[in-house]
Amino acid sequence: MAERVSADVAVVGATGLVGAELLQVLAQRGHADGPAGGRVAAFARGGGDRNVPCGARALPCRDPDHLLAEAAPGMLVFLAVGAEVARALAPPLLARGARVVDTSSAFRADPDVPLCVPEVHGMALQTDPPALLASPNCSATLLVVALEPLRRAFGLAHVAVATYQAVSGAGRAAVDELRRQTRLLLDGGDAAPAATWPHACAFNVFPHESPLDAVGDCEEERKIVAEARRIWGLPDLPIDATCARVPVLRAHSQAVTVTLGGAADLDAVRRCLAGAPGLRLVDDPARATAAQATGIDEVLVARVRHAASERALPPAERRRVMLWLCGDQLRKGASLNAVQVAEAAGWLPPRAPA
Amino acid sequence: MAERVSADVAVVGATGLVGAELLQVLAQRGHADGPAGGRVAAFARGGGDRNVPCGARALPCRDPDHLLAEAAPGMLVFLAVGAEVARALAPPLLARGARVVDTSSAFRADPDVPLCVPEVHGMALQTDPPALLASPNCSATLLVVALEPLRRAFGLAHVAVATYQAVSGAGRAAVDELRRQTRLLLDGGDAAPAATWPHACAFNVFPHESPLDAVGDCEEERKIVAEARRIWGLPDLPIDATCARVPVLRAHSQAVTVTLGGAADLDAVRRCLAGAPGLRLVDDPARATAAQATGIDEVLVARVRHAASERALPPAERRRVMLWLCGDQLRKGASLNAVQVAEAAGWLPPRAPA
Repeated sequence: MAERVSADVAVVGATGLVGAELLQVLAQRGHADGPAGGRVAAFARGGGDRNVPCGARALPCRDPDHLLAEAAPGMLVFLAVGAEVARALAPPLLARGARVVDTSSAFRADPDVPLCVPEVHGMALQTDPPALLASPNCSATLLVVALEPLRRAFGLAHVAVATYQAVSGAGRAAVDELRRQTRLLLDGGDAAPAATWPHACAFNVFPHESPLDAVGDCEEERKIVAEARRIWGLPDLPIDATCARVPVLRAHSQAVTVTLGGAADLDAVRRCLAGAPGLRLVDDPARATAAQATGIDEVLVARVRHAASERALPPAERRRVMLWLCGDQLRKGASLNAVQVAEAAGWLPPRAPA
Repeated sequence: MAERVSADVAVVGATGLVGAELLQVLAQRGHADGPAGGRVAAFARGGGDRNVPCGARALPCRDPDHLLAEAAPGMLVFLAVGAEVARALAPPLLARGARVVDTSSAFRADPDVPLCVPEVHGMALQTDPPALLASPNCSATLLVVALEPLRRAFGLAHVAVATYQAVSGAGRAAVDELRRQTRLLLDGGDAAPAATWPHACAFNVFPHESPLDAVGDCEEERKIVAEARRIWGLPDLPIDATCARVPVLRAHSQAVTVTLGGAADLDAVRRCLAGAPGLRLVDDPARATAAQATGIDEVLVARVRHAASERALPPAERRRVMLWLCGDQLRKGASLNAVQVAEAAGWLPPRAPA
């Protein structure tokens, strides 16, 4: 029987990619055990014997049943588990007075649960937020962070996005599969029998694996459309998305074309992006790669230009802007945003200075 | 001094990726040495001591200076070299009466040189073509093959494309760099000092490396726009392109959104694509991957759907169609198209039955 832990912060799903990153983000932002930080505890189904890193420490990882027994008013719980598990865990945690930030899709469409990106909602979250907050889909979050300054300055009339998504979004097994298959192919063998996908992922690009609906959109595309609209409170914003996977470990890239609500010259667009929170405007395209976005907090935004199809218009009439972005799927796409949501809600102190 | 070769067909640049594939395509289509085929000779600068495969045979590879000495009326020369070399080689070859198909960008904008995709131009090429024909940029070719049936049936009002381009388009050194860097990273090292790109290509996605112009388009994007317009004879067709590289060896993928000239229901669009030459309509997205497009002649087309942004319109008013395509950059993107151009021009016999 594990000893009782009265943690201030709990991470459930701590052996998964997002959960593991959450523990590191908590430590990096000064929220983990230490002079300024609260106590952090890690939980994962079947993870009983493992220790998981949190900064320089190794936390024992216990079964979520212990968390339910120990949850108390004021405890902050991050759920980094699948939607089904999140739907089962959240109600009893809330009933025990815990505050919950869920990174799964379980509550993202629930009108009682705010879907939060602090770059959009900012301090609005601090006005008596409900005890359950949802963090969006990774691709939606990255897109919204990059376009938020343009939405505020110019409005949005249409968004088109093609994604280049890392395999980390499909979980730890997918990352292992990419490494294993890649080595096999380099050694001259065939790709191993596929587990996560019915085809090779190594040295391959392929449509996103989430199921198609009757009209042909995959679930990931539907999430981008529905969640970006909800985050912005723009239920009718036209968004066209195509989602594809690339053999990249953990940063997503996106080719975005946005039609602004009004005309904007490119200098104004750049100025608007340059000072915006959560993103880093990059002049050299060679510095806006998936690898360079890996492990950092900011979304890299590059290749800002007017669409060629509008170049025949006078500059003052051009509304269609193209850009390229790269962001860490596990950080801003999931764990970092969840921690920032808790900070914005006042459930964690503002980020401690490094 | 190498012996004199009076070849019917010459491939210049035979040690490069496109040249090597050209020799294989010639053999596979019955155009190489054999009962029905002509004699094929291989040339490459500095390739003097090497043999290059052409079907089951190995051809000696000689310096292009020999070709200039031996070129004769009626000889068919494929140029699989850089634009600068092509500009130097083509005039003396033409002066000696040779017919030339150039795969470089040297002549693609030359109004006296047809820019050819047989799926578009078909038998029109057989009416006394000029002795120099150009084969388009790989991305432009794949895009045009996929959209040609829609152009014929419905017209095109706007094309948007985001590319997922294999490293083979950057040459053999780039392919070697991807393999070498990938192994280093898998072994726990850093990516090797980059040669082709100033950053890692292994497990990375990045904007296309071709130079940007003053308005922010890269050269690859300008090629797609200019060449697709020229191939179709639609000089004002609005095209928005974003080109990116992915760690894939030799097949390009593209996320395409096309606004048709008029409304089209999805069944009509599918029927139109299903029977079209040069492409294969695929129902299961998991069968439209870069790996599955590698080594085949057809462009795989999948995920055909109306754009979500038009779903609020009655079906009879929807004009915006999205699709996903994958095609072999070295085959239809370069070598195969060049051979098909020669066939369509009557410079090679129609493809022999397999």
